[in-house]
Amino acid sequence: MAAMDVYEAIKKRRDVRSWFSSRQIENNVLSRILDAGNRAPSVGLSQPWNFIIIRNIEIRKKIKNIVETKRVEFYESLPEERKDKFNGIKIEGIMESDLNICVTCDNTRKGPNILGTATIPETSEYSVVLSIENMWLAARAEGIGMGWISFFDPDNIKPLLGIPENIKIIAYLAVGYLREDHDIPELEEKGWESRIGLSNLVYENTWGTPPEDDMEKALQNYRIQ
Amino acid sequence: MAAMDVYEAIKKRRDVRSWFSSRQIENNVLSRILDAGNRAPSVGLSQPWNFIIIRNIEIRKKIKNIVETKRVEFYESLPEERKDKFNGIKIEGIMESDLNICVTCDNTRKGPNILGTATIPETSEYSVVLSIENMWLAARAEGIGMGWISFFDPDNIKPLLGIPENIKIIAYLAVGYLREDHDIPELEEKGWESRIGLSNLVYENTWGTPPEDDMEKALQNYRIQ
Repeated sequence: MAAMDVYEAIKKRRDVRSWFSSRQIENNVLSRILDAGNRAPSVGLSQPWNFIIIRNIEIRKKIKNIVETKRVEFYESLPEERKDKFNGIKIEGIMESDLNICVTCDNTRKGPNILGTATIPETSEYSVVLSIENMWLAARAEGIGMGWISFFDPDNIKPLLGIPENIKIIAYLAVGYLREDHDIPELEEKGWESRIGLSNLVYENTWGTPPEDDMEKALQNYRIQ
Repeated sequence: MAAMDVYEAIKKRRDVRSWFSSRQIENNVLSRILDAGNRAPSVGLSQPWNFIIIRNIEIRKKIKNIVETKRVEFYESLPEERKDKFNGIKIEGIMESDLNICVTCDNTRKGPNILGTATIPETSEYSVVLSIENMWLAARAEGIGMGWISFFDPDNIKPLLGIPENIKIIAYLAVGYLREDHDIPELEEKGWESRIGLSNLVYENTWGTPPEDDMEKALQNYRIQ
């Protein structure tokens, strides 16, 4: 079983579109990654997730076409000065990755009295997202990259995968071994966005109040190595 | 810096309410946990999260009261046979934990053309949830437990923390060192819910279709050790 320090996995994990190799993912490795997903916390232990592994090339081609249409729509919506930069950015690796995984949410699983969903119904979907990050980090430890694709209307994807009406698509993932590691997110590398530093994002007790001096200094100095 | 294998962290991570110790979290450790959050993937590199560290006891008491009201409401809504079991379950460790963290989402951060939110607006919130799982696993590696509390109406909490109207609360977390490790989720231990095994949750190509034989066997046999 692959071993990687949790901080290393967090640091080296990237949202991958471009760097997939053609190596196949072994079933035992894929099983561990999915097991990582199934061990995520879920509201009221509801485990609202399902994982659809998509190997079928015809289905993937159709999904790629749907994504491409949305890519063009997004391109058209951009101000002129952003269009060129956007064209240099790859937004999905549906065909280049070894397989795709569609992760869904069934918010009726385990009945009507789920601890915690009564007050905040979104917590079912949030549980599924927690499971996706577990998978992302497990994959990273196995040398496998994941890319979360969101350029589609879920209603167009659901019939292709036979997903029932009451089930919500949370994520569509491209998954495969990596040819190379990247320290910097692709969107930063390509100058699309820059990252905000941690100390700008942390408050104490109330919104907008910076933490006390000692904590402020720690935020500047103690990071993941 | 604490070191723990990513699979071990995933396996040992619990949603903690009951097992907090009184030990204080060091600033450098807290900084690393928040840094883990800030290194999560986010849609279009938008980093829509903020982290409000809540040490103030008066604020926490008020939040605990709000949660208690919702706890009683949920209790009243339960069928008789579930009520006793529910009363044996602790739903929050707001005061017993060393500190609380409120994690929020600003879906306007980095402007109007965020890659990926145009088609699926929820991806901003989902990004924040990914950052929470990073924090959860980093905390676990540091010997620190986290509990996600969702028994409240966010509109009641926002004024206490001075959170602006356009900012959404995604999670309210109790965070502290642990007195003991638990292999089994508390809700399972107490007989509230049982866990679904992985092979019941995985399909191939289309909803409801089990994976091919070899993969099906892998799902049965290859788990996180």
